[in-house]
Amino acid sequence: MTRSPLPSVLVVGLGLIGGSVGLALRDHGVQVRGVTRREDALHKAVMRGAVQGGSLELADEVGNAGLILVAAPTRTSIRLLREVGALASPGAILTDACSSKQEVVRAMDVLPETVRAVGGHPMAGREVAGIEAADPGLFEGATWVLTETERTDEESRGVCERLARLCGAEPLWVGAEEHDKAVASISHLPLLTAAALVLAAEDADSELVWRLAASGFRDSTRLAAGEPEMGADLALTNAPALAEAYALFAEQLSALVDAARGDDKTRLRGLLAQAARRRQGMYGGGQ
Amino acid sequence: MTRSPLPSVLVVGLGLIGGSVGLALRDHGVQVRGVTRREDALHKAVMRGAVQGGSLELADEVGNAGLILVAAPTRTSIRLLREVGALASPGAILTDACSSKQEVVRAMDVLPETVRAVGGHPMAGREVAGIEAADPGLFEGATWVLTETERTDEESRGVCERLARLCGAEPLWVGAEEHDKAVASISHLPLLTAAALVLAAEDADSELVWRLAASGFRDSTRLAAGEPEMGADLALTNAPALAEAYALFAEQLSALVDAARGDDKTRLRGLLAQAARRRQGMYGGGQ
Repeated sequence: MTRSPLPSVLVVGLGLIGGSVGLALRDHGVQVRGVTRREDALHKAVMRGAVQGGSLELADEVGNAGLILVAAPTRTSIRLLREVGALASPGAILTDACSSKQEVVRAMDVLPETVRAVGGHPMAGREVAGIEAADPGLFEGATWVLTETERTDEESRGVCERLARLCGAEPLWVGAEEHDKAVASISHLPLLTAAALVLAAEDADSELVWRLAASGFRDSTRLAAGEPEMGADLALTNAPALAEAYALFAEQLSALVDAARGDDKTRLRGLLAQAARRRQGMYGGGQ
Repeated sequence: MTRSPLPSVLVVGLGLIGGSVGLALRDHGVQVRGVTRREDALHKAVMRGAVQGGSLELADEVGNAGLILVAAPTRTSIRLLREVGALASPGAILTDACSSKQEVVRAMDVLPETVRAVGGHPMAGREVAGIEAADPGLFEGATWVLTETERTDEESRGVCERLARLCGAEPLWVGAEEHDKAVASISHLPLLTAAALVLAAEDADSELVWRLAASGFRDSTRLAAGEPEMGADLALTNAPALAEAYALFAEQLSALVDAARGDDKTRLRGLLAQAARRRQGMYGGGQ
């Protein structure tokens, strides 16, 4: 009998992320159980094979689990981590999948000393939510950020790295503050600028704007199509870093607009060239 | 012998747009000639079959053309329209492909009364430029904005509509001011916000930001990968409308950021839901 690469896994929250982790682990022969408040989600997760069983009650499952992934919106996750921490067996490892880390790490730092905890953020997502959209390939090639807490030890580090790798992702250890600052710039602020572009276009004109909108606008605003509840959660739980990213952005944008208004072609072209060079360095041209 | 659906066509400027028009018209058996200052572009356009011949000098070609499409950056196009207007045969029809229309229409309004002129803007583009990227399918299904000028008559209206349709696009008559306001919102401002997101992310952090950037950031900043010269031209020739669109956007974005900073989840979720609904109405969810 082959030894499982992970302790017995429990996923708390069976949406896109939790379901996709379940499916990915199943493909490696790892047994996964689930807890969710929603009976239909549990039923669907079992039917799809994302979990082999589960419950609507944390108390039924947490005590038997060696690795518990809390995969819910950030504030719900923080509440769940406290509840899970109180119910978990000694030595159990808790991790999460939230897109901001400082609030989560603060909650993990005060868990009972009998449990271990590692912050986590798989950098993958879709503009669709729910177990229906779960996909074992969701994390393929993605970065899975891991963050140390007061409750992290050598073994929990290794287990969480294995979890990430079994899902097809590359683990990357990043401090919570550094992480939150970076995702504010590349994820949370772009979500708000996408929404603001749509709302401003709606202010500008009724029908013509939507009639003329081509692929550039579609790409620029794709993040605005996401689930509002999730988007609000992201922004609210990373508000200080978001405000800093916003200040940097507002400065750059007003420099660009001022150059256009002042007919300063040299300056405008220079700024656009700098942005184009930097972006081409990241993704290659035209992608 | 079948009568050509268009008068003899001359394309001035053999880049992505001019080359793609040439290729699309060739597929309908329309003969196209070209003028460009760049010998290599003319050579490539002939080799690819985008034009059947041409010259580096306007004077060699303009007098023989019935329909002249000026397909260059906006300010170059305005200069070229004046030169073409002076050289064109009586009755010749001039049109353009610039992404702002008020400056172009003002230039067309003062052309010699012997010529006819219609503003044009095919709403299609790529983040790559040059005749190398020309594609006969570029305009397939796109909207091709047409704008009346003091030099527009019934026949020139019909000819420009046929030009758009032969390229696979749908002609749409829109006033210059209305057009410029709409494209400021859906095209020129998103270009600047994309650039500002890249520049602000660069301010925020060195390596981590680029390491963590996922598909959301890639989509949000795609427009920033375009040609800086072209981008600067777009913004400069539509600066007043761009400044208005920017004011609306800045107001919406600051409302979103304020709601996040103030921990006002109801307001933030409400704004994001409004944006998501509006965008889903345009493109469908998740696209």
